[in-house]
Amino acid sequence: MDLFGVLHLDELSHGLANLPMFPYFDMAHYIVSIMSLREQPGALQVSRVSPLACWFSSMLFCFGGAVLSAIMLAEPVVAPLSNSTSVLIASIIWYLVFYCPMDLVYCCAALLPLRLLLSGMKEVTRTWKVLGGVTQAHGKYKDSLLVMIAIGWAKGAGGGLISNFEQLVRGVWKPETNELLKMSYPTKITLIGAVLFALQQTHYLPLQKHHLMLVYTVFIVVNKSRMMLTGSSTSPFANIESAIYKTLFTGHSPYAALTDEVKKSCIDNGATNGSTSATKESDDKGATGKHTTGSPVKEKSVSLKAKEESENAETNCKKTN
Amino acid sequence: MDLFGVLHLDELSHGLANLPMFPYFDMAHYIVSIMSLREQPGALQVSRVSPLACWFSSMLFCFGGAVLSAIMLAEPVVAPLSNSTSVLIASIIWYLVFYCPMDLVYCCAALLPLRLLLSGMKEVTRTWKVLGGVTQAHGKYKDSLLVMIAIGWAKGAGGGLISNFEQLVRGVWKPETNELLKMSYPTKITLIGAVLFALQQTHYLPLQKHHLMLVYTVFIVVNKSRMMLTGSSTSPFANIESAIYKTLFTGHSPYAALTDEVKKSCIDNGATNGSTSATKESDDKGATGKHTTGSPVKEKSVSLKAKEESENAETNCKKTN
Amino acid sequence: MDLFGVLHLDELSHGLANLPMFPYFDMAHYIVSIMSLREQPGALQVSRVSPLACWFSSMLFCFGGAVLSAIMLAEPVVAPLSNSTSVLIASIIWYLVFYCPMDLVYCCAALLPLRLLLSGMKEVTRTWKVLGGVTQAHGKYKDSLLVMIAIGWAKGAGGGLISNFEQLVRGVWKPETNELLKMSYPTKITLIGAVLFALQQTHYLPLQKHHLMLVYTVFIVVNKSRMMLTGSSTSPFANIESAIYKTLFTGHSPYAALTDEVKKSCIDNGATNGSTSATKESDDKGATGKHTTGSPVKEKSVSLKAKEESENAETNCKKTN
Repeated sequence: MDLFGVLHLDELSHGLANLPMFPYFDMAHYIVSIMSLREQPGALQVSRVSPLACWFSSMLFCFGGAVLSAIMLAEPVVAPLSNSTSVLIASIIWYLVFYCPMDLVYCCAALLPLRLLLSGMKEVTRTWKVLGGVTQAHGKYKDSLLVMIAIGWAKGAGGGLISNFEQLVRGVWKPETNELLKMSYPTKITLIGAVLFALQQTHYLPLQKHHLMLVYTVFIVVNKSRMMLTGSSTSPFANIESAIYKTLFTGHSPYAALTDEVKKSCIDNGATNGSTSATKESDDKGATGKHTTGSPVKEKSVSLKAKEESENAETNCKKTN
Repeated sequence: MDLFGVLHLDELSHGLANLPMFPYFDMAHYIVSIMSLREQPGALQVSRVSPLACWFSSMLFCFGGAVLSAIMLAEPVVAPLSNSTSVLIASIIWYLVFYCPMDLVYCCAALLPLRLLLSGMKEVTRTWKVLGGVTQAHGKYKDSLLVMIAIGWAKGAGGGLISNFEQLVRGVWKPETNELLKMSYPTKITLIGAVLFALQQTHYLPLQKHHLMLVYTVFIVVNKSRMMLTGSSTSPFANIESAIYKTLFTGHSPYAALTDEVKKSCIDNGATNGSTSATKESDDKGATGKHTTGSPVKEKSVSLKAKEESENAETNCKKTN
Repeated sequence: MDLFGVLHLDELSHGLANLPMFPYFDMAHYIVSIMSLREQPGALQVSRVSPLACWFSSMLFCFGGAVLSAIMLAEPVVAPLSNSTSVLIASIIWYLVFYCPMDLVYCCAALLPLRLLLSGMKEVTRTWKVLGGVTQAHGKYKDSLLVMIAIGWAKGAGGGLISNFEQLVRGVWKPETNELLKMSYPTKITLIGAVLFALQQTHYLPLQKHHLMLVYTVFIVVNKSRMMLTGSSTSPFANIESAIYKTLFTGHSPYAALTDEVKKSCIDNGATNGSTSATKESDDKGATGKHTTGSPVKEKSVSLKAKEESENAETNCKKTN
């Protein structure tokens, strides 16, 4: 693309493409991931009760993408464990974040400027992971765009996609919610990245790989920083999504009238349908049913917020000290 | 077998064995599968909330057998996705069944004569899938009858066997029921088919492959049609099953007296044991407990009926329009 | 090691290392495993309702380690099924334990002296399984200690580690508990064994393989017998564990004061957090909440006791006759 030449970005994009992820960017990824685990409700208690379950959960947060893509490609799930250096670094970070004397490490890392830097670096690893997944899939399934997207997505957002099973390790089970039913921002942006890189790989997207890497990386880092600084969790694609949804998935069907109503109430109902006992309770209790049905949603939003690594952590940290 | 020669069925069975499944029979399989997903309680709401979860669920209904057998044989789970044409056709059908303007496609396909034809064609694909699984396992594990049966069964009835996890995609979790605890008719007939084809493959069954294909296909198609026309869901093997059960699994054990009682109450109890909260509820509430315990069973039968692609869909369709 | 030479144990350890597991020790493993399945709450009812689910559950108890390590190494999960002789023996034992006329087999095997012998023999197979896993992993991942430990552990304690999914086959779902959150004695001792054998394999432990096999086998057999005879379930490592825990996982963190309290209440809370409905109940009911929260713990301890193959089975057996 000539634009890159004009703006002298060619060199920059080449430099970025040759940036090694190991060790600094990987470490930032481990720190931010394990901190977001620590901010999950109940995670601190688990860390006191069973350090092993906590460690295993942390490894799933750090290497979830590698594990999920290994399962999908029928490669050994233990392969990520065989990279001793990475596991060792992740384990040391896990120990420091959860058990450091005076809780120093967590409190320092949770300071807004440092957290902003770490989160930015973590976002950079996303580009590499998505691209790695797409390239790996391209090597095995030459012409299958769908497989490339699936593996790229799994590599980049694996931790989120397997969150139901990661939670199970910690004794938490929330079947009424998953990343397919209600995608979080990181999952969404990774999917878009996987689509873009798969299109680039198959030459449907007339862009050079390193240029795409630059554009995508800048976009996700800037966007993540914006979200952390403004505290907003609105997706930058909300309007496009809404337009696509209205065009494709409502149509002139007899349910069109229902759709708006459904959109509002669906998560409540979805959650209620999911857990039989909850349904029964609300049936049995009449008036109090409304209150009961509401709570899973509240709980979920709490957990999602925690996952989004909110900058509130800083405040919490001061409180606990 | 001479009988086939006498009845001039030899040519017919050869013709059937050479029948290509792609594209018409495969399409019938996709249509019937996705329609049965749509008739699951809560599925329509999921289709409005998260088209992606709905699409993924549909793919599990369509390619569940391929996915399950891939897992069992340690082959890439994404392999079914790499067959772009099949995935494209299934995706178009998914879109038309769920989001077609005026809901035309679903309503047409749900008309009894068309549904009868499509269901018959879907049953034909079952023969091919079971045989494919048995042959594939025979290539890898020469002399293991059990592996052949397992893979044949998984290929032919995969969607049912992984239904717990397919439901999880839609935010539904019903641990108290699965296809092993209470087999549905399609799962049962597929198991029988897998046993027959595995015996044929290892020459324990003195029958030629194409003859067995003809006999099995005719049997499942006729039986499916009979069940749809009469609306009965009684298995044609109920008597044989009952006899085998009484001979082998009751015996002279001290529990023999209990068995009848258990048989009646077991599903209730099983369900109650499964979900701790339900148990606690009935303990806490005394008199109302009975009522509570009953409901999962009712719910389950509803879901099973939906899966059996009841012809009631036609009526529902008129109602919704 | 010279000590072995001095005590003339060299020959004994060589003899042990050449002991074939098939068929007697394997049979003891199958018998003890299937008996412990039968002692799980609700398992007998499942055996009357669905012999197939019961059989599948039994196979997971018998071959759980092989299945789990196959998944981790991306080898076919059906491979254990392809060993027809083992599956046949395990199936016959399953039939006899669950459905034998007059319940003779279970009642005989549950007699303390016989159960003691069988449990001892089952423990011997543990050494072979752990060693097999470590060796297999060493062949694939030369220098990765972690992978060796993981595969050795999975092979030796697979049944326990996949217990959540084994229970799901029987319609039971207890997300609030798993072997990582609260390790049972067999899981713990297997992990220690896996660590020792992995260290021996990589020559960090200056001990010959057959010597380590002797020491480890004698330790687990003696310890199991002691636990069965005294009826105690206290781990022989309780003190060491406690010391390690206090040194590493409490530290000077601001949570140190909390830790003791957390240690007491954690399992209750963990369980409550896990099942949303339970939480809601206790919120809704106020005074009765305390009672509700307590019950999952009680239930779990019952199930763990059952798993530990308590010698009470003998008493139960007399009662049922």
